Amino acid sequence: MKNPQEVVQRMLEQDHFSQWMELKVNSIAEGTSTVSMFVKQEMLNGFGVIHGGVLFSLADSAFAFACNSRDNLTLALDAQINFIKKAVRGDLLTASVEEVHSGKTTGVYEVKIRNQASDLIAVFRGTAYRTGKSLFENKD
Amino acid sequence: MKNPQEVVQRMLEQDHFSQWMELKVNSIAEGTSTVSMFVKQEMLNGFGVIHGGVLFSLADSAFAFACNSRDNLTLALDAQINFIKKAVRGDLLTASVEEVHSGKTTGVYEVKIRNQASDLIAVFRGTAYRTGKSLFENKD
Amino acid sequence: MKNPQEVVQRMLEQDHFSQWMELKVNSIAEGTSTVSMFVKQEMLNGFGVIHGGVLFSLADSAFAFACNSRDNLTLALDAQINFIKKAVRGDLLTASVEEVHSGKTTGVYEVKIRNQASDLIAVFRGTAYRTGKSLFENKD
Amino acid sequence: MKNPQEVVQRMLEQDHFSQWMELKVNSIAEGTSTVSMFVKQEMLNGFGVIHGGVLFSLADSAFAFACNSRDNLTLALDAQINFIKKAVRGDLLTASVEEVHSGKTTGVYEVKIRNQASDLIAVFRGTAYRTGKSLFENKD
Repeated sequence: MKNPQEVVQRMLEQDHFSQWMELKVNSIAEGTSTVSMFVKQEMLNGFGVIHGGVLFSLADSAFAFACNSRDNLTLALDAQINFIKKAVRGDLLTASVEEVHSGKTTGVYEVKIRNQASDLIAVFRGTAYRTGKSLFENKD
Repeated sequence: MKNPQEVVQRMLEQDHFSQWMELKVNSIAEGTSTVSMFVKQEMLNGFGVIHGGVLFSLADSAFAFACNSRDNLTLALDAQINFIKKAVRGDLLTASVEEVHSGKTTGVYEVKIRNQASDLIAVFRGTAYRTGKSLFENKD
Repeated sequence: MKNPQEVVQRMLEQDHFSQWMELKVNSIAEGTSTVSMFVKQEMLNGFGVIHGGVLFSLADSAFAFACNSRDNLTLALDAQINFIKKAVRGDLLTASVEEVHSGKTTGVYEVKIRNQASDLIAVFRGTAYRTGKSLFENKD
Repeated sequence: MKNPQEVVQRMLEQDHFSQWMELKVNSIAEGTSTVSMFVKQEMLNGFGVIHGGVLFSLADSAFAFACNSRDNLTLALDAQINFIKKAVRGDLLTASVEEVHSGKTTGVYEVKIRNQASDLIAVFRGTAYRTGKSLFENKD
């Protein structure tokens, strides 16, 4: 069985959008991950702050890494986000995942995004469905 | 007072991330919008399908255009998305907004994303807060 | 196989809380249901309007009837509600369910609650997990 | 200005549905509350477990007490719940509120419901809108 580091390395290698966001995985373990990125100009919306969709994307990638960390291929069913505080160009954002529930076929994960001053920027909650398959099936 | 077309044109001009997604605004009117994009390689996740965050971003941009269409500066408080079906590179996705509720200070919007075959890809619901300011204040 | 009417009759017979709410099932078919109730004094909160939890409960019961209508035992994973307009004692509320997605193991359902004047009171969205079991197993 | 205890006492006196649930407020302070109840037969659904709407209602009442604790009349805009584990008749459920964000006009609150064995039963998140009015206006 693959360990969490191997799983996330495999996911990231093929994850074009996380690469575009220039995500850095700070830590990864079973059921959790911590992921950072800098806010760049291409991520801004029409009001000069980070696009809500990019905040969601940062949380969603951290969620996906945490969900799949036990090499049980897991898909997001739904997710919810509350926008708390603006982030602007140059901010360093860090998403931290807490595994609220890990069942056999489903899981619930909370993600908090904070900036370099530890201000809370957004909170995210996702519901995941586990397929029971390895991420490495038919690939190695 | 500005009309919906003028508002969205102003928003898009400065919206770097919607530009990156290459969004096309098909229609815009008070409280609604229809927005399309093609799924490109940079939008894919580690499983070869569109990143959930990009789907959310498409819906979130359409939501923002609809919310602000009356030139009342409106901010997203929270949003929720259900992922229904995969989308892959080359798919043409269209997000359509329905204004479920338009109150004086808050609003509720539903967004449906469909592909070129009219298959439902995702459903999104957002809650918005109206500031009462013009988007053109201090700018014209 | 049981038809939707038989399934909902069985559910209601044993559903003490829906009985307490005095729910009336106006219609039931595969993937949908319409359910009504009157707002009674015991349902009010400290502000003299219907308790948000009772609105949610009405939607949740309608959702459960729609989900289980094909006699595939289905559980709610999560749900979300937007509160649009107040309801007061004596109002007649009707919840109508739309099946947004019906997959093999999961489903997505929207519920709209309206009052006797057809004003929208709340919108609800639930994600359900299908167990593949009959509701009548080990019981008949 | 009223203190949190006075505010919640006033809310509870007039809250028929929280009375029906036989809620006990274990603690209340600015931005938080802890509330308990026993699962009684009238709260069960057709599957012999607590109705999802009653779980939501417990969380929603705790949320309302926390939101209004500073005597700033606050209304729920929307809320979301994940159902984690069943609760049955006789269980003692406790809802604990965390104030994730307290802004001038809006707030975000997380509620966790646990049973007597400290098992997590459900997680809830609500978005609230502050009116700026006292709960005691025109009443004292």
